Amino acid sequence: MRTRVHIAAAGILLLSAASAQEVPEGPREILRRLLEAGLQRNDAHLLLAELIKKAPHRLSGSAGADTAVALTARMLARVGADSVWTEPCVVPRWERGSVERATIRGERGRRTPITVCALGGSVPTPPGGIRGRVVEVTSFADLARLGEKVRGKIVFYNRPMNPITLNTFDAYGGAVDQRSRGAAEAAKYGAAGVLVRSVTLALDDVPHTGSLAYVDTLPKIPAAAVSTHGANVLSSLLAKEPDAQVELTLDCRTLADAPSANVIGEIRGTTRPSEIVLVGGHLDAWDTGQGAHDDGSGCVQAIEVLRLIRGLGFAPERTIRAVMFMNEENGSRGGPAYASNPARGRERHVAAIESDRGGYVPRGFTVQSDSLTLRKVLRWKPLFDELGAGRIISGYSGVDVVQIVQAGAAGFGLDVADHRYFDVHHSANDTLGAVHPRELESGAVAMALLAYLIAQEGL
Amino acid sequence: MRTRVHIAAAGILLLSAASAQEVPEGPREILRRLLEAGLQRNDAHLLLAELIKKAPHRLSGSAGADTAVALTARMLARVGADSVWTEPCVVPRWERGSVERATIRGERGRRTPITVCALGGSVPTPPGGIRGRVVEVTSFADLARLGEKVRGKIVFYNRPMNPITLNTFDAYGGAVDQRSRGAAEAAKYGAAGVLVRSVTLALDDVPHTGSLAYVDTLPKIPAAAVSTHGANVLSSLLAKEPDAQVELTLDCRTLADAPSANVIGEIRGTTRPSEIVLVGGHLDAWDTGQGAHDDGSGCVQAIEVLRLIRGLGFAPERTIRAVMFMNEENGSRGGPAYASNPARGRERHVAAIESDRGGYVPRGFTVQSDSLTLRKVLRWKPLFDELGAGRIISGYSGVDVVQIVQAGAAGFGLDVADHRYFDVHHSANDTLGAVHPRELESGAVAMALLAYLIAQEGL
Repeated sequence: MRTRVHIAAAGILLLSAASAQEVPEGPREILRRLLEAGLQRNDAHLLLAELIKKAPHRLSGSAGADTAVALTARMLARVGADSVWTEPCVVPRWERGSVERATIRGERGRRTPITVCALGGSVPTPPGGIRGRVVEVTSFADLARLGEKVRGKIVFYNRPMNPITLNTFDAYGGAVDQRSRGAAEAAKYGAAGVLVRSVTLALDDVPHTGSLAYVDTLPKIPAAAVSTHGANVLSSLLAKEPDAQVELTLDCRTLADAPSANVIGEIRGTTRPSEIVLVGGHLDAWDTGQGAHDDGSGCVQAIEVLRLIRGLGFAPERTIRAVMFMNEENGSRGGPAYASNPARGRERHVAAIESDRGGYVPRGFTVQSDSLTLRKVLRWKPLFDELGAGRIISGYSGVDVVQIVQAGAAGFGLDVADHRYFDVHHSANDTLGAVHPRELESGAVAMALLAYLIAQEGL
Repeated sequence: MRTRVHIAAAGILLLSAASAQEVPEGPREILRRLLEAGLQRNDAHLLLAELIKKAPHRLSGSAGADTAVALTARMLARVGADSVWTEPCVVPRWERGSVERATIRGERGRRTPITVCALGGSVPTPPGGIRGRVVEVTSFADLARLGEKVRGKIVFYNRPMNPITLNTFDAYGGAVDQRSRGAAEAAKYGAAGVLVRSVTLALDDVPHTGSLAYVDTLPKIPAAAVSTHGANVLSSLLAKEPDAQVELTLDCRTLADAPSANVIGEIRGTTRPSEIVLVGGHLDAWDTGQGAHDDGSGCVQAIEVLRLIRGLGFAPERTIRAVMFMNEENGSRGGPAYASNPARGRERHVAAIESDRGGYVPRGFTVQSDSLTLRKVLRWKPLFDELGAGRIISGYSGVDVVQIVQAGAAGFGLDVADHRYFDVHHSANDTLGAVHPRELESGAVAMALLAYLIAQEGL
């Protein structure tokens, strides 16, 4: 495409700069000024780069998570929040260790390594590893039919995400039970361990971690994710050599719960300061990558919302509060701690907007509320359409704000173009370079616009 | 984000597979089957990989372009087109050569190389290069004020794309005059050569080429794009050392026009075969990269439209025709040749759908037609909304189909999330790896859906 192509109707014409002192007159002017202040430098990406440089690994309870708490508190102060504080929460602490290794032992002693990583929360293997024949299944129904035949063996869950499901979160939801419940289900029948095909649509040699849930009344058996390439290799080999064995060694460990914190900053409302419009993401991230999309993006977007609002001199009637929740990934302690903090008793949360679907180009919001509230929000749809984010539909908000939403706030999830998300999710692919500055910033602008409109007009 | 997040309302539930023999009953069923047939393997990306492997460089008149003509004709036959043919066109032929080099000569003999590439169509410098002082401008008005002061010097156009313009095509349109007309304007005042800041929002050391237009009555002076990093280096140095000179050497050349071809394949309409619904992109590409987004993507999407329609056993009433236009980038010979081919006299083009904005996630179509036609198309908007491509607005279609549109066809441009496009456009960054298989395929599905609906229902 070259010079003649010019899509006049598709863009927003940005005219002369308005004075930063003026209070903007209409919603369209607000959007124009947010875009101008956002896209000029894409500060959200600069914040993300700083977060990742100083705290590349932020698993709950880790030194990196502590660094991230202190750093994002400083960032909130730097962008001009009226107040910045932390609220305590106690988090689980799990460490990956330094050994995660799996090898297929085939006929004639042939060894084929496959790439694995421990699932979050897994118990370790004995130091010498475990070794056993492999039973490949694609569902818990398969497993139940096999029953006691899996005793002493390694259960290999190999149901892929369904590629024909357009929404990748739906496809993820259709496969992730293997990761979250697979170890407990296999333990029912005496399995020695579990391998789970990485929950991703990408075919590569990068394993994707994520949390598992054990059941207290059942043995805890070690569990690892295998890369999709490795899963295909293992499956092909088992088809030819059903007696092949796998050796699995993990030295991860669970430590005592640790003190941690949610990080909070706000611009105080001028006329209704106790009414809160929350924007947030989660600060903890899996240690396999940099947690750039999941969910460094959501955190820096929340900080950027305050920077934009403050920088433009807007004075919202209700309080706009950015919250970086701790421990979304393996325990969800931050969300409930925030919701149950005694300070909440003096506040009313009008809305809670979470960004936790990756820092991709925004396409709208899912709204978790009653139909009357959804209708109120839809009056702003033409404005969000101009931003390309006009897909405002009923749906889930986010893990960290669900308690606040249950307590009466309208919940919003920033919805994004999601095709690339599970390629990087919970893996070494989730790096700063995979986040596009303008895409990330556009999401922050969408959040800022929604937060400010709600802060001014209520719901 | 982890397991609990599930956006039920945002996705399309894909149920059991339907038999490929059945004619689908409703538009929703058509979409469901297109998605199922598309996203299972993302064949458009496999076609793109094959095109780029066999013809990575496809500048008009090159051996690579010839290879691409033959290859895409074979692809069209392979996917089951009823007929495949080529139609001749004569194209300009320009070669980059092997030398493109620029060096800043500052005080005390200090040499600072900056990364450049010749603009398409540029004349070469003398073998030893040109050398001159540099005049930095950001507009033709600047240049006109300087007038004769630029004689013998190198004009350096350094106006960036405007980052605060949300639509990157609009931002491109606001900067590209420097590239397309800069050499001719500078020649008016006797400049020796031209350097142009690459027309991109990315800050890196990769220059972006593109065509220039000389004016016959003015001298033709050599012109090169400089990387944005290089442009910043040069501008900073000029601020301190206004007498700094630049040496520029280019050995590109223009050869005699060459015979080439548009590549065409179609599924013949059952009841109205002479009524054509065209889908297309352009086959030629700049030689600096692989032309993966611009516009290998549009070509393979057009082929994929035929594969999907044929593979699903759909039998459209009107003819659905895929056209790979030659020579969009530097001459636009393919579009007019297609429109003026005598065979068109026996046909009526109902619609022409071009994809030439990159293989990114689709968000809708711009419609170049009258308001009545737009209204007719908008009755399908809810269906396209399900695909995330419901942004159907008035706008430009595409360079290659403009003659067909002027002759009466409704024009459509596949519109995509465009933040990343100009990072890669016309540069070494435009590679296969930058195209996401699901994003590309979703665009093909959107085109197939629109083409099939029009083929069945007319406009």
